[in-house]
Order: sequence, then C-alpha cells, then structure tokens
Amino acid sequence: MERKRKQQTVFFKKKPIIIGHYSVVGPKEGKGPLRDYFSEIAEDDFFEQETYEKAERVMIEKALKGAVDNANIRFDDVRLFLAGDLLNQIISSSYAARSIDIPYVGVFGACSTMAESLALGACLVDGEHFDTVACATSSHFSTAERQFRYPLELGNQRPPTSQWTVTGAGATILSCKGHGPRITCATFGKVTDYGINDVNNMGAAMAPAAMNTLLAHFYDTKTTPEDYDLILSGDLGKLGSEILIDLMEDHGYKLGLNYKDCGQIIFKRNQNVLMGGSGCGCSASVLNSIILKRLISGEYKKILFMATGALLSTTSCQQGDTVPGIAHAIVIEGDINE
Amino acid sequence: MERKRKQQTVFFKKKPIIIGHYSVVGPKEGKGPLRDYFSEIAEDDFFEQETYEKAERVMIEKALKGAVDNANIRFDDVRLFLAGDLLNQIISSSYAARSIDIPYVGVFGACSTMAESLALGACLVDGEHFDTVACATSSHFSTAERQFRYPLELGNQRPPTSQWTVTGAGATILSCKGHGPRITCATFGKVTDYGINDVNNMGAAMAPAAMNTLLAHFYDTKTTPEDYDLILSGDLGKLGSEILIDLMEDHGYKLGLNYKDCGQIIFKRNQNVLMGGSGCGCSASVLNSIILKRLISGEYKKILFMATGALLSTTSCQQGDTVPGIAHAIVIEGDINE
Repeated sequence: MERKRKQQTVFFKKKPIIIGHYSVVGPKEGKGPLRDYFSEIAEDDFFEQETYEKAERVMIEKALKGAVDNANIRFDDVRLFLAGDLLNQIISSSYAARSIDIPYVGVFGACSTMAESLALGACLVDGEHFDTVACATSSHFSTAERQFRYPLELGNQRPPTSQWTVTGAGATILSCKGHGPRITCATFGKVTDYGINDVNNMGAAMAPAAMNTLLAHFYDTKTTPEDYDLILSGDLGKLGSEILIDLMEDHGYKLGLNYKDCGQIIFKRNQNVLMGGSGCGCSASVLNSIILKRLISGEYKKILFMATGALLSTTSCQQGDTVPGIAHAIVIEGDINE
Repeated sequence: MERKRKQQTVFFKKKPIIIGHYSVVGPKEGKGPLRDYFSEIAEDDFFEQETYEKAERVMIEKALKGAVDNANIRFDDVRLFLAGDLLNQIISSSYAARSIDIPYVGVFGACSTMAESLALGACLVDGEHFDTVACATSSHFSTAERQFRYPLELGNQRPPTSQWTVTGAGATILSCKGHGPRITCATFGKVTDYGINDVNNMGAAMAPAAMNTLLAHFYDTKTTPEDYDLILSGDLGKLGSEILIDLMEDHGYKLGLNYKDCGQIIFKRNQNVLMGGSGCGCSASVLNSIILKRLISGEYKKILFMATGALLSTTSCQQGDTVPGIAHAIVIEGDINE
C-alpha cells in the first residue's frame, strides 16, 4: 500500500541513554491525574517572579537543574543544551541558557520541541560529537494565551475545539554512558498542511503531520502499532487524536488501546480544558514524569514518543495563511544491551 | 593566560562538504559592494507577494532551490532541511519548509542562525545520520523593522548605533560526498550577557558572545587569528566589531586585517546604514556569495565563519531584561583531502 518513500528515520548505533529527567508543572496540572508523577508542582504559577514570562524561564531552569541532579552528574558534565519554546524568539529557553555555563543551541518546532530536541540531541550523542546533552522545553498557559490569543484579563469564552496550554517544563539528559532507557531511532517529520485555518483547532491542524510521521516511521522501521507498549502523541487533544486514528485507519493501521495523547491524560475531564492540554510543556512534562518512570521500572519496554507542532504565528494567521503542522518521533526502549 | 576550559569545539572526522550554495538579496543590497557576487538580486523587495512576510519566505524558497541546483542534485537528494529566521515562530522558514517534501528541523539563534544551522548540519552529516542536508536562513528589512521596532510608515529617525537589517537569504547544501569546501570543525557558543539594554545597539550586545566563542575556538583548536585567511563575523557592525577587537586584545589576541564583518562589507558607507548591515540574512548572503566563491576559487584556503545573535524579543525588552548574545563558529577549508 505504501509507495516508495525516502527514509526519514535515523537509527542510532550507540543508542543514547536517558540518564536523567525532571518535570515541573503549575498548580492546575498538579491537580490532574498525573500529580503523583511530576517531579515538582508549583503552588503558584508566577514561580515567585514578576511576570509570567519570567516564571516560564524559571520553570526551564528548574527542570534542567532537576534533570542534572537526577542524572547524578554536574552541570559541567553537560556539554550542550538544546531547547526551545513557544514564546517569540524562544526567550524562555535563551534566558534560561544565560543562567548556565553550557553551549546552547536554540530549536523551534512549536509543540513538537521535546521530540525535536531529543531527536537532534540523540544524533549528536550517537555521532560522538557530545558525550552528554540536555534537552528541554516549556510552556505557560498565561504567556501563550496572551501572546497567541487574547489578553488574560479579557476572559474570552473558549471555543469547543480549543485546548488548554499546559504550564509545565521538562528536561532530559542524554549521554553515551550510564544507565537508563535508550533512544534507538528517530523519525524527522515533514511540514504538512491540510488547509486548517481555525487557530482554535490546533488538533485538526497537527493530526495530518502526525499521520505522515507515523506512516514514515512504520515504513522505515518495518514495525506496526502493536510493536509498541505505548504510542504517545504530544498534544493532539481529543479531536486531533480522533482524526489521527481515522487517518491511520485509512492507511491500514489500527491505533489501539496502546495509543495515548499527553494532552488527554494530563488533565481530568472536569478541569474545564475542552479538548485537553497543549503546548510544548504538555508532552515535555508527561514524558519526563510518568512515561520515563514506567520505562525505568520496566512497565514499558518500548514506546514511540511523537510530539506535534503547529507552526503558525499571529502574523501568519492575520495574513490569511493556513496552519502547517509537523511531528517528530523517537523510539525509547527500556534499559537494553548494556 | 586561559583557564581550564571545557571543550566547546567539535572536530569533524568526515569533514562535511559544501556542495552547493545560493544567495538572494533585495535591491538595496544589490547596489552594495558585493552586487557582482550574489546569485540573485531582486528588483523589488516584495518578491511579487502581497506582504513582506510572504516575500521573506519566497527568498528562502529561492535560496534553497538555487542551492540545490548549484549542487547539481535533486530536491529528493536533500534528506533534512535546517532553517530558522527572526520572525516570531520562525514562520519564514516553516512556511518555506511547507513548500518542499523534505523533513524539517527549525532552529533559532537570531542572527547566528546561518552558523548554528551549518554547525548542526555538519554534525548530522559527519555522524552519518543524513547524507545531504540543506541549511538556510533569511531576514527582511521590512519584516524585522515592523516586528521588532516601529511601523514602517512611521519613518522613525534611527539612532547612530543602529544597524540596517539586510533583506536577503542564503542556503548551503552539505554532503558526505562531492566536491567543494569542507567544514572541518564547529565551536558552539554560550549565551553571554554584559548587561546591554539598548535595543538599538545590537553590536555591543553581541560582541562579548563573539569574544567568548573566539576564545573557546582558539583554545580548543590551538590556533591563533593568523592561522586564518579570513575571520568573518556575522553582523557586529562597525561598533560591535571595534568592541570585539578591543575585547580580544585584552585577552592577548590581535585581530588584524584578516578580520572582517559581513555587516560592514555588505553596504557602502553612503548607503545610510549607520553601523552597517544586520539580520540573519546578512551573514547568510555574504557567506553564500563572495566567501564561498573565494573558497572554491582557492583565494581563501581556510576561514573562520562566526555569526552572532542577539537573543531578545520585544517582550523581554519591555520587561526590562538586558540583551543576551550568542555566537557559533565554523571553520571552512578549501577543497582538501579528497
């Protein structure tokens, strides 16, 4: 059924090891179903700062420091920091990078950033360019909302297809040595645009990109959905996930009970989040909490983590552009081949 | 004189080859001293589009297509597209990536993006993760001006330390096979902030980061400025370059006549650009025109290309933050060791 495809998946010879992880979330996320798994839950989403933007960068700094401590290494041992976020000019990441004495590479993939930074970071460790790298991202409800949508004070009604930007950050330390789950391959996604122009329906905009990356991944790796204990998308939300399931079925793949979406599992139904969570911090905080814990404990042996991003800006919307999506995926396997 | 430093430089075993390059600039740049070297000069900076933002993405698309043609390969042969730009959520790059059927990784390093994407791209080719990658960036005077400063129609007077954002784009194709100049090493920079808070003085904000990266580079590679036919900074401009020269002298390094800045050579004195050119497209269009041509012709044997970025946003300025800088550097050598 699949045509001849150019390979989009990179297979890692060295299988970079996840030696540390950490997640930080806001109070609302801390009341959700994953509250027992997050490394740190803030009581106040200002994180003792004057502005939400400064709070967001503190989240990244906390996540990075926590992951370094969790890896039981020193900051000095981290040789490159790869990070990005949703704010204009990724200031959360860049200002967080200012606080540390580590070379920094800024990345941008909107809400796909956790997967993008891990995929790139895994290449750099696998290629022996850096022994140990840190990957991180964040999002904050109050910074994203006022940058992309309306002033917070306006209290706009939210359309039924909208999602709730997660206040959270996650950081992961990858290394060529140590113990932990391993990244065995990465599928780099293509920009996909099915013509969605509703900025309150990001799930629908991103689902086709997710489909494209999944199809490329299954094709390249000769696997099927059943080969994974978990297939985890980033923040498609309820509607986006349903679209993805339909699209995949059209291509002959059945996503079953092992398919979950971070945006759907981070909040409870009664938390008033409509289609679910979204934002870079959604997949980052879920991956760097329950998911990596379950990989370490052996509950999961092999998972596919795919974060999706909607590559729009307020300018592109105002100029009538549709919303392109992208999805990057990595396979993480429990402590193997040591 | 230097203390113990952690290595920031990656040495490439495979020495990725620059097999294609292309530069596109606007009419003002086309009247500058480098007019005979650019691949393409537009008569109108709208590039037949309705908005400047759409024009900017067309520049990236043209640069990418031109570089692919220049490399004498097909689009299909490019396995990854690494790009970023100054616009919020790097829309120029992401929308350009939508027009091609190639996996895409968005990066952000403000005006350091050309060096950042080449340094990362070289790692990915060197590590055998991708045979051939394309790296690109752009800037447009009219998109940057209205996003970062004032509406174009306002016709604000420009302070004497300000620079002129280059309307231009450049793309470079890196491959593990073929002929051309080679990237032999890359120095990844750290975020550096000396407390500059004047958003009309980017040169001063970026010079300390340039110094840090140069010091790390010379230390790691055991070279001195005299070892290079050319040391080329991205867009420090006249003031920033003078600050860099002073800072380096304080550390015992003399930057001589072989040091140049793209921002200073892209415009003539009488083009009313004050401290010179700036923007991602400044270093991208200069590297992908005169510099690579001279490396190919043998006029240069070994150069150090270092692009600097100011990692601010309008939000960070408005919240009283100072301007952090970053600089990444790569060494390009003429056709060697084939």
